Amino acid sequence: MAEKSRIGVTGLAVMGANLARNMARRGFTVAVHNRTTAKTNQFIEDYGHEGAFTGAESLQDFVDALQVPRTIVVMVKAGKPVDAVIDELAPLLDQGDIIVDAGNSHFPDTDRRTAHCAELGLRFMGIGVSGGEEGALNGPSIMPGGDPAAYGEIADVLTAIAANIDGTPCCAHVGPGGAGHYVKMVHNGIEYADIQLIAEAYDLLAHVGGLSAPEIGTIFEQWNTGDLESFLIEITGIVLAKTDERTGGPLVDVITDQAEQKGTGRWTAIDALDLGVPLTGITEAVFARTLSALRDERRAASTTLAGPAPKPATDVDRLVEDVRQALYASKVVAYAQGFAQMRAASQANGWDLDLGAMARIWRGGCIIRAQFLNRITEAYESHPDLDNLLMVPYFTEAVGNAQDAWRRVVVTATEHGVAIPAFSSSLSYYDGYRRERGPANLIQGLRDYFGAHTYHRIDGDGAFHTRWSQDGAEVRTD
Amino acid sequence: MAEKSRIGVTGLAVMGANLARNMARRGFTVAVHNRTTAKTNQFIEDYGHEGAFTGAESLQDFVDALQVPRTIVVMVKAGKPVDAVIDELAPLLDQGDIIVDAGNSHFPDTDRRTAHCAELGLRFMGIGVSGGEEGALNGPSIMPGGDPAAYGEIADVLTAIAANIDGTPCCAHVGPGGAGHYVKMVHNGIEYADIQLIAEAYDLLAHVGGLSAPEIGTIFEQWNTGDLESFLIEITGIVLAKTDERTGGPLVDVITDQAEQKGTGRWTAIDALDLGVPLTGITEAVFARTLSALRDERRAASTTLAGPAPKPATDVDRLVEDVRQALYASKVVAYAQGFAQMRAASQANGWDLDLGAMARIWRGGCIIRAQFLNRITEAYESHPDLDNLLMVPYFTEAVGNAQDAWRRVVVTATEHGVAIPAFSSSLSYYDGYRRERGPANLIQGLRDYFGAHTYHRIDGDGAFHTRWSQDGAEVRTD
Repeated sequence: MAEKSRIGVTGLAVMGANLARNMARRGFTVAVHNRTTAKTNQFIEDYGHEGAFTGAESLQDFVDALQVPRTIVVMVKAGKPVDAVIDELAPLLDQGDIIVDAGNSHFPDTDRRTAHCAELGLRFMGIGVSGGEEGALNGPSIMPGGDPAAYGEIADVLTAIAANIDGTPCCAHVGPGGAGHYVKMVHNGIEYADIQLIAEAYDLLAHVGGLSAPEIGTIFEQWNTGDLESFLIEITGIVLAKTDERTGGPLVDVITDQAEQKGTGRWTAIDALDLGVPLTGITEAVFARTLSALRDERRAASTTLAGPAPKPATDVDRLVEDVRQALYASKVVAYAQGFAQMRAASQANGWDLDLGAMARIWRGGCIIRAQFLNRITEAYESHPDLDNLLMVPYFTEAVGNAQDAWRRVVVTATEHGVAIPAFSSSLSYYDGYRRERGPANLIQGLRDYFGAHTYHRIDGDGAFHTRWSQDGAEVRTD
Repeated sequence: MAEKSRIGVTGLAVMGANLARNMARRGFTVAVHNRTTAKTNQFIEDYGHEGAFTGAESLQDFVDALQVPRTIVVMVKAGKPVDAVIDELAPLLDQGDIIVDAGNSHFPDTDRRTAHCAELGLRFMGIGVSGGEEGALNGPSIMPGGDPAAYGEIADVLTAIAANIDGTPCCAHVGPGGAGHYVKMVHNGIEYADIQLIAEAYDLLAHVGGLSAPEIGTIFEQWNTGDLESFLIEITGIVLAKTDERTGGPLVDVITDQAEQKGTGRWTAIDALDLGVPLTGITEAVFARTLSALRDERRAASTTLAGPAPKPATDVDRLVEDVRQALYASKVVAYAQGFAQMRAASQANGWDLDLGAMARIWRGGCIIRAQFLNRITEAYESHPDLDNLLMVPYFTEAVGNAQDAWRRVVVTATEHGVAIPAFSSSLSYYDGYRRERGPANLIQGLRDYFGAHTYHRIDGDGAFHTRWSQDGAEVRTD
């Protein structure tokens, strides 16, 4: 038998296979296992030459092939399969072995599994991995959550396989328990907002600007050389430029306009509602996908519900530049909201998240990778207790400079009847956040009227109720 | 000992006490009980003359005082206290007795309790009651969920104490299990949207129109004579007109602008995310309250974040009429979304909800009571399988007529820097819903690029993937 392996990977679908290959290419000895042995054999046949792999037919062989304390990466479908693998593995392991769940688990499940494994004397880590198949193979962004000492024992592997930007690996210990999967969830939520904003920009350029998909692709290509530079802007240019083999026209023009989703955006929005953090950009993005799914209803409504009268042609050059600025400002708001959510979760759970480090490990490997994230890291380095990203000079100024263009875009879309849920909700958040005194005083007055829910006064402490239906007098209730 | 009582109420805080008094005033014999006997005695002392009450010191006395099969209304704080009361009551009851939870329970808890009680041979009903203290006393809107046969046995009491509009009681069996509490939850969610829209209208009239609180109060009073006629518009006029005893100025001007919430709006939004129903109006209303709560942050931001340059004065009369129309159109969208959510829940749970009846029982007694609800009842009577309220001629035309004004309001607010999350998200929903082809094709193209999530084509069946990073060819994947 070969020497014992440094690490094991069970679950050899494409993500697990690519992570294992990444580890082997970086010089680590890797034991691999899959429930279906044929898949393990195929893996060894296809990739065995890439590094020092040990293929294991049974879980017992797999466990026996590993150095002690063992490190086992589980890469199976999120949900019950993760629990099933843990249940099968646990009896075969020794105290102190480390089980790593590298799938897209929901963070409360990770908290639960961490506690369960601790009872069994095992150490459990939930790590977020972003970057898709290609990232898994060539360098993903890694968000490890769990016991810091356990992380210390596997950090050599994780930092070696992670993406690397300017000499810094895109991997840093996030926090205890489910913190890693939590941060990965918010990453995905922000990705939803980024993508929705791109879709709204495309929609405006096509329907107000009258531009074709390849023309808009060229604009995104140009945008990718400036403030917006990012993986998603880059691939938007590529996708819009793509010609369909069958029709000879743009591929996007033949793709059905129904967006699907796998759930992490929804989790992020639900968590924000639970925490009481205003997260309008991501939530509108999730709802926009659900609205897109109602294709039959939309078709019926398109000939029934009235739109605005046709508008005169717009100055396309100005529209393009305005949309660029609106996209940037709305993106800043989406990130400000997502980071405010992570801050609230960190406080609620005692995670002590280093938000600047989170931005740093998202600079490479993951779907939302962008130069822009350097500015967020700098913001938290200079202001560790920052309430909101909008409040650091760099972003205050960026959004302040963009706001006129941003407002023009909302106005143009509104007048032309183009839906812009993410652009407009981000602007309303901005305008609501910068209001010293908003209209919620009336809300409190109404709630006191119909439900005796009481209100506070700006000129003193205490809770008050007005006896609206009796003598109209105000009484102190606390 | 007096004759046995028709019904019992345990939990004599104001809601329970008022329901008991309402029953007694309608001629029913009512046994009352409270954990603290002093409260029971006080109740009898204060209200004993109003009807045929039996005060019970112990739960055993309470149970013994009731006609068999017993009907016991539990009116305690939602959550664990409801389970505690059930656990205490169950051993004292006989097969077939009915426990009615009339509090604000979350519908999954009601489903769970229904199953639990069924195992014990008891019948459980979860009924939504809206209307606050005054409604409970004089006639609330009642949304009973649970076994239809059990409802049949207590319908005489519930329909007698409910509000009554045009000879029809605001009470109708909703559906099995948690259906009653579910509908009450959506009622409360719609209430959040209604109130947020009113707050945005007030904000625009104050900050763009330059009107004082009493001036705006007069406008609401006028609005209450037209399409917007409703309890909430009526009390907005009253609250805005109210003079503060201490300062001599308008009361709303001294109420703190931080809105509180008790959770039902959040539940509604979370449920919509779970169901995959776009529910932007209610969700933005919930987030607007959470943003209002960040008062210290808003104060700091108000002097840091830039707003638009000052705008010239507007034509106030036109602004008032535009805002009125925007409020009506946005309200229609909020109801369309809420009813689409109930429809989706009905299908998902097999509840077979009669949506027209739901609108009918909300016409009186509850917080969102309004003439407007007659139009919704008519819509479902003429189109029982309606996908969306916007698609019946009455609402199609109403929103079509209002849309120019609605767009002007969104434009004006955007140019003046006033946050209008509910107005603008409702308009984006309208514009998104009436789009035969939206921009989600690009979203699917991007998802296929970075995650191989595949897409569908408009020109044929099947799922497809483009090998973006390999040979660029399209392959069928299903």
